Amino acid sequence: MKGKKPDHGRGTALAESPEFLGSQIKGRLWIERQGEIFLSWGRVVLLEQIRETGSIAAAARAMKMAYSHAWSLVANMNDLAGEELVGRTFGGRHGGKAWLTPAGEAAITQFWELADKFREWLKDQEA
Amino acid sequence: MKGKKPDHGRGTALAESPEFLGSQIKGRLWIERQGEIFLSWGRVVLLEQIRETGSIAAAARAMKMAYSHAWSLVANMNDLAGEELVGRTFGGRHGGKAWLTPAGEAAITQFWELADKFREWLKDQEA
Repeated sequence: MKGKKPDHGRGTALAESPEFLGSQIKGRLWIERQGEIFLSWGRVVLLEQIRETGSIAAAARAMKMAYSHAWSLVANMNDLAGEELVGRTFGGRHGGKAWLTPAGEAAITQFWELADKFREWLKDQEA
Repeated sequence: MKGKKPDHGRGTALAESPEFLGSQIKGRLWIERQGEIFLSWGRVVLLEQIRETGSIAAAARAMKMAYSHAWSLVANMNDLAGEELVGRTFGGRHGGKAWLTPAGEAAITQFWELADKFREWLKDQEA
């Protein structure tokens, strides 16, 4: 990993097989809607950080991500979902409060269930 | 896809599920050895282009990749495999001739078999 900024999933394995004869299979999954990335590892971790901190700004800081980037990811997820995954109040110089809606909670659950199934499948493969 | 340069797999889906309620699961797989990328979609397509053209330089041109980059990918694959996947003669300003060894053919077969199984698995998932 280069530099200090953590890699939140782009180009990074979400799951991996056990090592077999010195080789390891690694993989990533993401969910698209209308041909655009909707949910990925990094986006789901952002949702979890919003749940934990109650604020998009604090979640962005925890992920060493620009606030404007976190905000645009949230806006894009709400847009592609056709309903809010993240509710938020506006105002205040730190951007107000934020919370997950039931649809946001469901998105997280759905993504990790899929990731778990992917990890199980990868375990069954031999490199 | 930005610019004219094709994306040979990094950040691009190797496999995808059918669309389900407007969503589609996409994914990538790659094989690592010693913690380094050994075989990925782009690397395997490079091997196939070398087989087709008989030359690393021609394969690089076909993939709109710098010759030096193609050469370093081949050297890295040979190194991580512990045997040559690509044999080559040196000399000549176009870098000589190149061909796949049986180990190179086996690597291609192994990767596409894994990719096929991954596509099958993704088909069984619902977004």
